[in-house]
Amino acid sequence: MIKTGIVGATGYTGSELVRLLYNHPEVDIQIITSESRKGELFSDVHPHFQGLADHELQPAYKVLDAGLDAVFLALPHGVSMEYVEKYAGADFRVIDLSGDFRLSTPNVYESWYSKKHSYPQGFEKAVYGLPELHREEIRNSRLVANPGCYPTSAILGLAPLVKANIVIPGEIVIDSKSGVTGAGVKAKPTTHYSNVSDNFKAYGLKRHRHTVEIEEQLSGLSSDGPMTVQFTPHLLPVDRGILSTIYSRPREGVTKNQLLSLYSEFYDGHPFVRIRKEPPALKDVRGSNFCDLYITYDERTNRIITLSVIDNLVKGAAGQAMQNMNLMFGLEEEVGFTALPLNP
Amino acid sequence: MIKTGIVGATGYTGSELVRLLYNHPEVDIQIITSESRKGELFSDVHPHFQGLADHELQPAYKVLDAGLDAVFLALPHGVSMEYVEKYAGADFRVIDLSGDFRLSTPNVYESWYSKKHSYPQGFEKAVYGLPELHREEIRNSRLVANPGCYPTSAILGLAPLVKANIVIPGEIVIDSKSGVTGAGVKAKPTTHYSNVSDNFKAYGLKRHRHTVEIEEQLSGLSSDGPMTVQFTPHLLPVDRGILSTIYSRPREGVTKNQLLSLYSEFYDGHPFVRIRKEPPALKDVRGSNFCDLYITYDERTNRIITLSVIDNLVKGAAGQAMQNMNLMFGLEEEVGFTALPLNP
Amino acid sequence: MIKTGIVGATGYTGSELVRLLYNHPEVDIQIITSESRKGELFSDVHPHFQGLADHELQPAYKVLDAGLDAVFLALPHGVSMEYVEKYAGADFRVIDLSGDFRLSTPNVYESWYSKKHSYPQGFEKAVYGLPELHREEIRNSRLVANPGCYPTSAILGLAPLVKANIVIPGEIVIDSKSGVTGAGVKAKPTTHYSNVSDNFKAYGLKRHRHTVEIEEQLSGLSSDGPMTVQFTPHLLPVDRGILSTIYSRPREGVTKNQLLSLYSEFYDGHPFVRIRKEPPALKDVRGSNFCDLYITYDERTNRIITLSVIDNLVKGAAGQAMQNMNLMFGLEEEVGFTALPLNP
Amino acid sequence: MIKTGIVGATGYTGSELVRLLYNHPEVDIQIITSESRKGELFSDVHPHFQGLADHELQPAYKVLDAGLDAVFLALPHGVSMEYVEKYAGADFRVIDLSGDFRLSTPNVYESWYSKKHSYPQGFEKAVYGLPELHREEIRNSRLVANPGCYPTSAILGLAPLVKANIVIPGEIVIDSKSGVTGAGVKAKPTTHYSNVSDNFKAYGLKRHRHTVEIEEQLSGLSSDGPMTVQFTPHLLPVDRGILSTIYSRPREGVTKNQLLSLYSEFYDGHPFVRIRKEPPALKDVRGSNFCDLYITYDERTNRIITLSVIDNLVKGAAGQAMQNMNLMFGLEEEVGFTALPLNP
Repeated sequence: MIKTGIVGATGYTGSELVRLLYNHPEVDIQIITSESRKGELFSDVHPHFQGLADHELQPAYKVLDAGLDAVFLALPHGVSMEYVEKYAGADFRVIDLSGDFRLSTPNVYESWYSKKHSYPQGFEKAVYGLPELHREEIRNSRLVANPGCYPTSAILGLAPLVKANIVIPGEIVIDSKSGVTGAGVKAKPTTHYSNVSDNFKAYGLKRHRHTVEIEEQLSGLSSDGPMTVQFTPHLLPVDRGILSTIYSRPREGVTKNQLLSLYSEFYDGHPFVRIRKEPPALKDVRGSNFCDLYITYDERTNRIITLSVIDNLVKGAAGQAMQNMNLMFGLEEEVGFTALPLNP
Repeated sequence: MIKTGIVGATGYTGSELVRLLYNHPEVDIQIITSESRKGELFSDVHPHFQGLADHELQPAYKVLDAGLDAVFLALPHGVSMEYVEKYAGADFRVIDLSGDFRLSTPNVYESWYSKKHSYPQGFEKAVYGLPELHREEIRNSRLVANPGCYPTSAILGLAPLVKANIVIPGEIVIDSKSGVTGAGVKAKPTTHYSNVSDNFKAYGLKRHRHTVEIEEQLSGLSSDGPMTVQFTPHLLPVDRGILSTIYSRPREGVTKNQLLSLYSEFYDGHPFVRIRKEPPALKDVRGSNFCDLYITYDERTNRIITLSVIDNLVKGAAGQAMQNMNLMFGLEEEVGFTALPLNP
Repeated sequence: MIKTGIVGATGYTGSELVRLLYNHPEVDIQIITSESRKGELFSDVHPHFQGLADHELQPAYKVLDAGLDAVFLALPHGVSMEYVEKYAGADFRVIDLSGDFRLSTPNVYESWYSKKHSYPQGFEKAVYGLPELHREEIRNSRLVANPGCYPTSAILGLAPLVKANIVIPGEIVIDSKSGVTGAGVKAKPTTHYSNVSDNFKAYGLKRHRHTVEIEEQLSGLSSDGPMTVQFTPHLLPVDRGILSTIYSRPREGVTKNQLLSLYSEFYDGHPFVRIRKEPPALKDVRGSNFCDLYITYDERTNRIITLSVIDNLVKGAAGQAMQNMNLMFGLEEEVGFTALPLNP
Repeated sequence: MIKTGIVGATGYTGSELVRLLYNHPEVDIQIITSESRKGELFSDVHPHFQGLADHELQPAYKVLDAGLDAVFLALPHGVSMEYVEKYAGADFRVIDLSGDFRLSTPNVYESWYSKKHSYPQGFEKAVYGLPELHREEIRNSRLVANPGCYPTSAILGLAPLVKANIVIPGEIVIDSKSGVTGAGVKAKPTTHYSNVSDNFKAYGLKRHRHTVEIEEQLSGLSSDGPMTVQFTPHLLPVDRGILSTIYSRPREGVTKNQLLSLYSEFYDGHPFVRIRKEPPALKDVRGSNFCDLYITYDERTNRIITLSVIDNLVKGAAGQAMQNMNLMFGLEEEVGFTALPLNP
């Protein structure tokens, strides 16, 4: 059994980790922490877990003496780095769901997060936890930086094209739409029901932290130098899910069938990517770890259109974290994933 | 392994059965039928099952020669009875999710469903499949009439009070609110997005088929003669879930603690009923087989208020059907239930 | 022209007042105040008013020197009373949208609002601003206490029955469901999108401030002594609207036609109450000042069921306030009401 | 008074016309027609109009003898052309809300609508009813082809750029997201609540009828030959509203301020286009005739991003039709528009 701890209980990624790990046959959730709610039960904070996960919430330092094998950090950006540092000498492996170690260097981090990084040494050992691109490094890693939600959807949608060097760098537009849970559990005007429901808007135009995360990963795949992308996030009146509509321009004409083969081969052996026959909808993956992709080619305009759909809390966060944990502990990637798409 | 068949693939109960049975360690879904879509794949009808359940849909008669142990009928009211009759001599057990055999007699059926019953003999062997009330009969049954969604929420909310003879018959008001999936998969004005979203209304005032189902079951529990209830359904702008707000009047004063004890004892040993500390919300049970109950007493008005919440497609349909199947095959009721509440 | 001021710009009632008063041919909005946002434009706070209402927000004291005829107080409970006191000697008339002067006495207020009242003298001159019941007093009033949203829907649904002494006191159940704007503009966990969307729950069981407001008004209509009601509010995943499902028991049998006549006569000459042929839905009144009523009688259970629907921000707040203003200034009640129901 | 008729009462554009025309001081709605519901009241079909618009629905031929000045055709594509032909010799002016006369020639129509056009002569006199581009032609027209909803949002977002010849043809991507009312009042699987709510998807990739409508109008503005655009529609879980996120590439560097000036000048004197300071949301225009635009320039990628928001039923249909009517009858464009944005 993998003895696991979850640091940070009050947010959506914390509760989602419990939902997913609960059914994992090789996992024992030994400790869940919260500074603000310690002493209360996990099910006091998330009452739908009453009778399922009634762990008493612990202060985070208890993690160090709990004989754990794996620790998930479900903490805000900027806070997580402190814990990665504190746990640097511990025996357990760490999966960090924040953005603190996703980028290539502390400098890039500081430039896009407008914040000094307090633990630059962490970058050396952190592996970017997108199993479809970095499976082997993840297997051997002791610190995984779990990818952002938008980047997961965008990178999986573009990776086959970039890797095959088919598209022109500089001609990529990623128009992404996300559900509200991506903005976190905290109540703010942005997440007030009446500002979201029956509504829709763009935000973070031109400059969003996830832009550089996408660009760095795609650049790593490209044999054609650094990639620049146009990325625009939007806020959907839904709880969960991201759909990215991705426009790219092939260097020369392609056919839909060529694209289908390319994607099928690229994702062969990757159980959580599905190449769909028809454009996928958010609910097709809701609650599950799937990334559903649809690809087509518009001869009239010479553009490739890729649609990429994930559940931002699962494949975009807690599910991908569990997938990474499986790899880190020598298990098949799909072990323990019982949650099927909830549709409707 | 329990070899199972699902008759009726296109509706919500059909796809929900697949979602739940998929993870059941003792179940093998051998056949799924659809007259209207036969020859297509189950995942053509419900694309979110692509790669998970790609069964070719069969005509329903194939069920007879498939060597099955259990057959679920996920068919409309009035149609199901024909299949129960056709399958009367078969070796497998039948769980009927329609309303065709839920009531006590063909006469009652005909009076409330305004329709002649074509297989009155079925009533003799049908058992009302509410495990919290009829566990033993279900264990020995070959034909289970799976309860209606509203009745499941209302009866579980009232059973302890009625059984203990605490409340005055004739003083019960059940104000229920249901999500749209209760109206079925068929597109009609009632289910058009723009008639439901940001909207709310009552329907079926005074006379709804579920009224008599509730009354018959409560009367069976009562030592005080037939129960009459006021039942009003409403349509919520949500996919799933029923919340019933139930008002009753005690014969004499009670306390909240007495009520809590009464409910706790009544549901002791019943894994899917949770007595909640605070009023439950729909999402606390979404996707799961729980019925969450909250009970309080208003001294000022001398009324008991009970809140009862279920997912209409799970505890109100497919989940309860799987729970019944477990009982019929000698398993623990909760075997195979991996789906935790999806919240948010 | 009626020179008006609006004290409190940031909340929903403030912006809704501007939306409604904007088209009133006899109204000139001279001043809008906000302590927290003063110096900014009204359209900075509510950007959908850009180009329509670009008033610079003033501190509230400016109201005193603005030569106004009417002032609307769109302030929280407990704050409003201070302003009523400050404006006590002013020349303008005041319409207070808070709950501070709706109840009969300071004592009742303190008992249900758990708060000391700082201006008890205000109760003497305050008139309860429900035009369908108190038209004449409102005409002559200088301080109107604009009714609560739930009470408006409940009282209008019950007034004909209580006034005619048809129903048994103590047998009234009001099961109300409200949209989220009723909880105010402030971001809190209760109003977080993901706690509301696809969700539903009851709250404030047994004891809610609006219970006593309903009881006092009904008692005033009754020739049978004080009325007690069971009132349960619920939170709907919608922006606007309240539907109250009201159960009462007639002293003796009635017919639906008798009830229809009773209601039609009672509301004859009241332009904002519509007696509906079918159960009304929230969107039938959305954005408008209508209260739609539906009445029926259940012979089987001997109960009257009344459905009452309003938009909580219009007939339940700002619209009713404008209706009261019309009366106070000798205009026809419906003058200036151009907003028709927005459906869908 | 302009005596008007509305042909086609059952759809959303029909009821929206009534909502808007109701408050127009110069309009008298004399006749509303419906073949399928004739003899019933308009308020039987749309109950929220009870007491407001209780017209008895007439067969369409009655329009010819009613002494009308203006007739609105709120009919499906393909049906409308028959009525335009029938009414060709009549005295009244016609505003056709369908797509039957929006394109340049019958051939283009037939190629994109996959349907033979039965009244090709109509194209000669039809004027494309986008007042911001064709005000003068509309003033003198007797047949206005009211623009499509997506095209209205896209063309208004791009017109200043194309007219000024600033952007490279062939580099335009229009990623549009629309509410469900755009799919019409008819119940179909696409509009079933549970397929839309908490969901999101793209459709009509590569080839949508509105693509050619956008391209033709932009080409008419361009001094640089025919324009080709990439247009992708998506279905939002909202009732009303379209947001188009439009990407274009300037021939040479521009600044945000230059773009703001360009747009401000272009739309100077056009009362329904608002240049917004921040990215607009759907609810900022809900129920109103505004088109809200936001423009920015991304130096990093050398792309212009334009956000364009309308209510598809108002500026995208009935409101624009009334705006056109005002022009055709010599009135100011904004006469009679009392409906302000309903937010929330």
